[in-house]
Amino acid sequence: MRGWNFSAGPAALPEAVLRHAQEELLEWGDARASVMEVSHRGKAFEAVAAQAERDLRGLLGIPENYKVLFLQGGATQHFAQIPMNFCVDGQRADYIVTGHWGEKAVKEAAPYAKPHVAASSADSNYTVIPPRDSWDLDSEAAYVHYTPNETIHGVEFHEVPDVGGVPLVADMSSDILSRPIDVSRFGLIYAGAQKNIGPSGLVVLIVRDDLLQRNPRPLPKIFRYAEHAAQNSMLNTPNTWGWYLAGLTFQWLREQGGLAAMERRNREKADLMYEAIDLSGGYYRNPVEPSARSRMNVPFTLHDSALDALFLKESEAAGLLALKGHRAVGGMRASLYNALPVEGVRALADFMRDFAQRH
Amino acid sequence: MRGWNFSAGPAALPEAVLRHAQEELLEWGDARASVMEVSHRGKAFEAVAAQAERDLRGLLGIPENYKVLFLQGGATQHFAQIPMNFCVDGQRADYIVTGHWGEKAVKEAAPYAKPHVAASSADSNYTVIPPRDSWDLDSEAAYVHYTPNETIHGVEFHEVPDVGGVPLVADMSSDILSRPIDVSRFGLIYAGAQKNIGPSGLVVLIVRDDLLQRNPRPLPKIFRYAEHAAQNSMLNTPNTWGWYLAGLTFQWLREQGGLAAMERRNREKADLMYEAIDLSGGYYRNPVEPSARSRMNVPFTLHDSALDALFLKESEAAGLLALKGHRAVGGMRASLYNALPVEGVRALADFMRDFAQRH
Repeated sequence: MRGWNFSAGPAALPEAVLRHAQEELLEWGDARASVMEVSHRGKAFEAVAAQAERDLRGLLGIPENYKVLFLQGGATQHFAQIPMNFCVDGQRADYIVTGHWGEKAVKEAAPYAKPHVAASSADSNYTVIPPRDSWDLDSEAAYVHYTPNETIHGVEFHEVPDVGGVPLVADMSSDILSRPIDVSRFGLIYAGAQKNIGPSGLVVLIVRDDLLQRNPRPLPKIFRYAEHAAQNSMLNTPNTWGWYLAGLTFQWLREQGGLAAMERRNREKADLMYEAIDLSGGYYRNPVEPSARSRMNVPFTLHDSALDALFLKESEAAGLLALKGHRAVGGMRASLYNALPVEGVRALADFMRDFAQRH
Repeated sequence: MRGWNFSAGPAALPEAVLRHAQEELLEWGDARASVMEVSHRGKAFEAVAAQAERDLRGLLGIPENYKVLFLQGGATQHFAQIPMNFCVDGQRADYIVTGHWGEKAVKEAAPYAKPHVAASSADSNYTVIPPRDSWDLDSEAAYVHYTPNETIHGVEFHEVPDVGGVPLVADMSSDILSRPIDVSRFGLIYAGAQKNIGPSGLVVLIVRDDLLQRNPRPLPKIFRYAEHAAQNSMLNTPNTWGWYLAGLTFQWLREQGGLAAMERRNREKADLMYEAIDLSGGYYRNPVEPSARSRMNVPFTLHDSALDALFLKESEAAGLLALKGHRAVGGMRASLYNALPVEGVRALADFMRDFAQRH
């Protein structure tokens, strides 16, 4: 019996996608081999790769002048690789920091740029989004970087910020594909796959093509996005299994009605969770300012942390998995990515009410 | 019906490993989730990760003073990352170039070192190994890099070269685990997984710990091997699926009798192939000097290239897959990695004799 999986990442995949992959794991199409056992440069895999890109372009409405790359290294590698590709030594790049991942992005950028924290909500312990008019932006900055959804702190931007003519760079690892977005507002979007796209070990990167003209330092080809773009992400052997599963996930999203349907469902799931917390009379608590609450990751604490262990034990026994909160904030966290059905969230909300009554 | 898969990479995986993975794809152990859907920091996955490392250490006899890392980016990324970690700007690093991959390693190193081609067999069109006494090595070089097996040209070192006190660095992507080696002869061994280890998107890197003390330039943590080592390759989310499948492959290798048994089997497979070529009276031809012939990748041409298309069509119809040679050398190539059984090679050798008689 599969449980309801609230893992923050690597996270739940759509069960239909897993069943499909399972069925053809040894014999994929007419390949007489697994999809993992064929050349990435063969016609069969090239068709998978191209279809995945087409489906992603369709889902997100990605304009023609953006390249879509399927890379490796996790978002963390791209914390470093983005300034490597777009900043000359010592050039200012502005960072809006609303949680743990934004902090890391700043640190990893330092060898290749002068990252400037233009706004931070660290002093609220990352429970708010700093008001736009407080941001200290420089129109000469290489880019403005932000994290639309902070997985650990459960803080999410519900609007794309206006940063003028400076390219906006977004680490969308934990909320990409959770709702429609206007890609043309961004210079670059990147996302580790292991939350809303597929398995870990894959990064999707969407970049406006004028940015690929920047060439701030001599780089090995393997670190230059422009080289990957010129080779359709086949500069070297990609993570073919991850790419294939991402493609199946994109097809599944289309069958679900696309991103408008996912947004409705994700809103319903988040509403169920915040209702269970807010109507608990203080038994459960989420510290985030309501307008900045994440629809993807809902951290919450119990009124008495002595009950944490019991909550985890009973919830797991009830088939509600991976609810332990990140060590940085403690308590619990329910991640509600696309692959988690409304039914699973309803089961958790019911469990929470029942647990509160019993203890 | 699965075919006999001679793909150069991504390549055949052991069928038993695929069946095992298929069976538990939706419910892994008692996780009530797929192995792809659980946190890399949870106890269950940590056990997989640790067991894979233990098994690899056992198979290769890796000494205590070597770290084993499970990384991403393909060998190509490490062409760049190795000099990044071990060379100060402009420092000499010696390269022995016996084929395409060695050439690429030189190019990708250039932004971080002064790669010096200490020996090359380019003028033989990569059909020999330059004699050791012709190598122009510098005892002050940061390291000596070579490619024990060149996948495209089918050239393999059958002895580990003696390079004195300079650390020997080996891109062992296409022959790691094909036979026992003495790891203590090396400073660093690295390998893309997609030939003898597992699916693409994973790199195994074995590094002597004194090398990790080198710190030649400010680097983001994600590019520092020492940081990955300090975090047991969990500095960020690893390719968990690749790591898991690598672990299953290591267990399979143990069940097969370990690397001594694999060496016997691989030698038998290579002998069958070279015999089919050499005893064909010139119908088939392999251009590599016999002492440098690869046991993993056997490129060969037909006496009349007008027959290539027919050979490929008929072999594929006979269930002998992916025999088309690399565009750089043309003709055919049979890759004989660990997962390909002797039976498959026998089928190919028989087919070759039959084809020669009929055409």
